[in-house]
Parts: sequence; structure tokens; C-alpha cells
Amino acid sequence: MSQHIDKSTRTVYWENGQVHMINQIILPAELEILSYDTYEQVADAIQTMVVRGAPAIGASAGFGMALAAHQSDAQTVDELRAYLKTAGDVLAASRPTAVNLFWAIKRMLAHAAKDYPSADALRAAMLEEAQRIADEDVEINKRMGANGAALVPQKATIIHHCNTGSLATVSWGTALGVVRSAFYGGKDVFVLVDETRPRLQGARLTSWELKQEEIPHKVIADGASGHYMRTHGVDLCVVGADRIAANGDTANKIGTYNLAVVAKENGVPFYVVAPISTIDLETPTGDAIEIEERGAVEVTHVNGTQITPDDIQVGNPAFDVTPAKYITGIVTERGVIYPPFEENIRAMMAKSE
Amino acid sequence: MSQHIDKSTRTVYWENGQVHMINQIILPAELEILSYDTYEQVADAIQTMVVRGAPAIGASAGFGMALAAHQSDAQTVDELRAYLKTAGDVLAASRPTAVNLFWAIKRMLAHAAKDYPSADALRAAMLEEAQRIADEDVEINKRMGANGAALVPQKATIIHHCNTGSLATVSWGTALGVVRSAFYGGKDVFVLVDETRPRLQGARLTSWELKQEEIPHKVIADGASGHYMRTHGVDLCVVGADRIAANGDTANKIGTYNLAVVAKENGVPFYVVAPISTIDLETPTGDAIEIEERGAVEVTHVNGTQITPDDIQVGNPAFDVTPAKYITGIVTERGVIYPPFEENIRAMMAKSE
Repeated sequence: MSQHIDKSTRTVYWENGQVHMINQIILPAELEILSYDTYEQVADAIQTMVVRGAPAIGASAGFGMALAAHQSDAQTVDELRAYLKTAGDVLAASRPTAVNLFWAIKRMLAHAAKDYPSADALRAAMLEEAQRIADEDVEINKRMGANGAALVPQKATIIHHCNTGSLATVSWGTALGVVRSAFYGGKDVFVLVDETRPRLQGARLTSWELKQEEIPHKVIADGASGHYMRTHGVDLCVVGADRIAANGDTANKIGTYNLAVVAKENGVPFYVVAPISTIDLETPTGDAIEIEERGAVEVTHVNGTQITPDDIQVGNPAFDVTPAKYITGIVTERGVIYPPFEENIRAMMAKSE
Repeated sequence: MSQHIDKSTRTVYWENGQVHMINQIILPAELEILSYDTYEQVADAIQTMVVRGAPAIGASAGFGMALAAHQSDAQTVDELRAYLKTAGDVLAASRPTAVNLFWAIKRMLAHAAKDYPSADALRAAMLEEAQRIADEDVEINKRMGANGAALVPQKATIIHHCNTGSLATVSWGTALGVVRSAFYGGKDVFVLVDETRPRLQGARLTSWELKQEEIPHKVIADGASGHYMRTHGVDLCVVGADRIAANGDTANKIGTYNLAVVAKENGVPFYVVAPISTIDLETPTGDAIEIEERGAVEVTHVNGTQITPDDIQVGNPAFDVTPAKYITGIVTERGVIYPPFEENIRAMMAKSE
């Protein structure tokens, strides 16, 4: 069913004036690379979840801005900046929760605000900056992986929620990057993969990644995580993040909060793995995070097959907020942040790399 | 998509020498009534989950024993008793967790052990006893419904896991029976229906039942329950049970334990609704309950469509155990049992009806 992909293939990349993405909607049944010529197409790809995962969304938005710079026939730097501002607004409207999206657009616009001798010079700078965001993401993930792997026992059973691997980033991954780093560092890891309803990112994407690299794992229903913690021995849980508030409250894929509560009740350490760019000091607590409500069809249908009766009501929050008190530590590229989070997040952000 | 079914149609019933059952595998896409001539077919129907839900399994086993009595060409009471013993063993091997299965077989065999003038008299007695089990189930459910409805506020948001309605019993239901009794008693109830992966009994069966009776509800992913408790206000959770140990530990559909832990953390009352026949004093604690591991296909496929990569490992425990400390009360047909459960369960069982 699943094809093999070269491990060096990035989830999102620029080639020949186009943005290319692995189509994550149809994985693992088919491996398809989609190509985009316009930033509007990139916004649509983010919205429909061809690409998903906070860091991958950030990198895609960067490339989307680079595409916009190339689409525009602006003759002056100012004209091009105005066009980029519009493109940034369109890209920013694609999804509401992941802060990396806004972070990347802001970074691209800040870069565009510098001095350029010509519109073409700004165009070239936009592509360079987008490429830099993507390259940095891979480096950052490797550093997070190393920082997180140090927390993994020599023999460890790890519960993982959603997909936070190569597919959620440019390459390597955040929480799944920790698993990778532990595995390639010689640790004996076994991953219990939450299937992650409704979109089944765990069953579809995480198992696809782990299978290719022969990292031992088992897919489980989301509701089974506590049963494994209580009866089988689980050493830690690792999850990604779409936004981390200044006090450590973390928005992540729906189901994360349940997992965190059950982990705490069972004394299982619960780590959030996310780059510094996921922390938003302008969001004081989790209560200020907008939770995206997605369409009913994600719950009523699986792969196009209807599972519920017709015309029923559905609740489909795509994310939830895990209050900081359930989080053991936040693994970043600069180190692990422990409670008290409010204070230690600020200290880590002030630290140079 | 779903047809309308006469509310008086029972989930399992005897007619014209056959056992009839609603085929719960294909609901809600189609409403089909299957008919069985042999106890082996009934055992298979239990195993493949044409019929599911602890009380419905119990009633089916009763009718299966009645079928066995009619299948057998035994000429003497002793010969027929021997045949029934074999049939009981086959039926008992169909599923391991729900105690109602063993309870019903034991009750049928105890009834067979009485004095009968002829094999035909025993045959007739077996059918009468099976019918009695089924009729009693409906009566018991109505009493549980009334006892549970008294715990439901006038306006209530209720989380419900799996299917515990008419389809899980002969009619009316256990936990969903409480919802029904509250609704028909004039309370303003709204049900958040856990879809209940992997077999989606909530999305498929509970929403089908609620839709037909126009009881307001919304289907949610199992992982979303905590998000609703934390942010929307949930008044109580109701679940069924497959076996309740002497100390109150409760085996129920996978995902129940996670729900109970998150409910406790959010101060949401968590009620188990089950007939006295679900309590097994011979099971001292939940640790002694065998948890059925079902096939991988339930996780890897939905309605015949594969969602995971090929050849991956799956963990598929069909049930989990919720330790008694997470349970607010156990609603039975004789009243509500509160902690300390060990003591109060014994007291309730000693009480005559």
C-alpha cells in the first residue's frame, strides 16, 4: 500500500519556482507530491490539510510568501511589499490555532521590510528567507531530538499522539523526532501510536513513518491509552504543540488533554516537544487560544465512507488546551523547560541559542 | 440512510422457533433482522458482534440455550441436559468479558436441573426461561432508568460512551436508558456521544437510537470528551458495564477508564448503569477480569476501508477496567450503590427486589 520515500525528501520544499508538498490527505494509501504555483494554492493546501503540523505549516507559509513575491509583477519594492502584505493576510486566514503560521508570516514580512535595491532583490531575499526557515526547522528538530532523547530511558514504551514526525515538520519531527533520536541513539523504544481521531494522523501518518524506519510500534485507539498506562507500563508520553501560551498552557491536537490527565493520574511523565517559535508570549494563558472547529464530515465519514446516520450533529474541535499543570516539561531546541513555566519560559526565550 | 424501526422491536427475540436479532454490524447503513436456527449460529453472532452489549448478550445466550433444547433430538431429560451442557460451553466461549453471558447460561442450566416429566417438558421450560430473562431485562432497564433519571439535573449535558441503549439490551437500555427516562420524564437533556473507537458503537448505534427518538445529541471523537468537560460544562457521564467486581471495579468498553479519570479531574459525576446480574462477587477486583483482545482489522479498517499502512502491529483491547475510586455511583434496578462499594454492593445484592 505505502510506497517508500527517500528519507531525505522533505515534507515541503521549493524546486523550479514551485512549492512541492507531500499530499498528507491520501497517505498511506498513496504517496503523491503536489506542486503549487501560487500562494493562494498554498493557503488552500494548509486549510485542507494537504500539509499539517505546526512547523510544517510555518515552513509552508514561508514558501507561500516566496511564491507570492514571484507571482507579483510589482516593479518597485514598495509595490511588492504591499502585495506581500495581502498574501500574508490570505495565508494567515488559512488556519487559526498554530502560532507558527503567524510567526513565519511575520518573519517573512519583517525580512521584506529591510532595504532592497530593487523588487527583484526583494524577490530573491524572500526565497532565501523561506529556505532559511525550512533549513532551520530541520536543525532545530535535531536539537530538540537530542534534548528529548536524554529523557528517554534505555528501554522505553512511549505513547505518542497525532503526527509530529517528518510529515509535521520539514523533516525529522518534534515529539516523533525525540523518538527518532532515541531510537537512532541506540535506545530500545516501543511506540504506542494513538490513532488520533478524527483525522487519524497517528494511524495514517505516524505509523507510516515508523514503519519505513522499522521503529517498533503498535497503533491503538485513543481511548486505549489509559489501559496501557495502567496495565502495561508506559514510560513517557510525547506530544507536539500548535501554540504554547506564556504560562505553559498548550494547544495541541484534540485528545492531548485527555492523554495528559490520564498520564498524570498514572505518574507517567508527559512532555511537550516544540520549537521556541511555537511559544507565544502574547497569549497569556490557554483560555486566549482560538480553537478551530472543523467540518462535521471528518467525524461522520472515514475515507469517504459514512459511519454515522444521516444528518446528525457533530462536535469537531480540532485542538484542545492542556493546562500547564499536566505538563512535565517542554522540550525545545534550547533545552527542556520545567515548571514554574511562566518564569522559565521567559528565561529560555531570553537565552541566546 | 437509516430506516425507522418500530420502537417495540426488541434487539433479540424468539419467533416461530427461531432467534431473531437486529444485525448491529451494518447499522446505521442498513436495518436487517437476522434469524438463527441453531445455538452455534447464536454463539457466532455473539462472537462477531451481530449482537453486543452485556444484557443483550445475556438474553441471546438464554435464547441460544432454548434453541439448543429444540435442536436436540434427545428422548430423555438426562440426554437433553447433557446436550444443554455442551451448548452452554460453546456459548460461553463466544466472548470472555461480559459476565451476563455466563450468568444467563448458568441460570438456564440451573433451570434445566429441576424436575421434568419428559424431554419435551424441559424443552418448553427452556424457552419459557429464556423469554423470562428477556422480559425481565426490559423491566429491569425501566427501573434502572427511573433510578438514574433522578440523578439527572433538569437541564443536563451528559457524556455517554459506547452503546448502552435498546441495542445493547433487549429494549430501553442501561446508561442510555437513564438518558431516555430523563428525556421522557421531561428533562432537557443534551447528549455528547463518544464515537467509541474502534467499533464506533457511539457514532453508529447510539446516534441512530437518539436520532429516531429526537433526543438532542452531538457525536464527538473520544479524545474530545475532556475538552467539553473543561470548556463547555458537562453535568454527568453515564456508561454501562460488562462486569463489575465485588469491590466496584468495572470492566466496560475501551475508553471508559480514560473518560472516568478525566471526569473525576473535572469534578463531573461518573455513573455506571448496570443490572445486578452484571455484578460478579466471584471477581474480587478488576485485576481478575479477562480483557478480550480483538482482531487488528477493527483498528486498521473502517467499514472495509483500510486506514493504516499494510502489515502494522495493532493493540485492540476491547475493554478496560475503571477502578472503583473513579465511580460516583452504580445505578442498578434496586437502587444506586455508592461508596464504599465493597460493603454496599453486598448489601444491595442481599436486598430483595
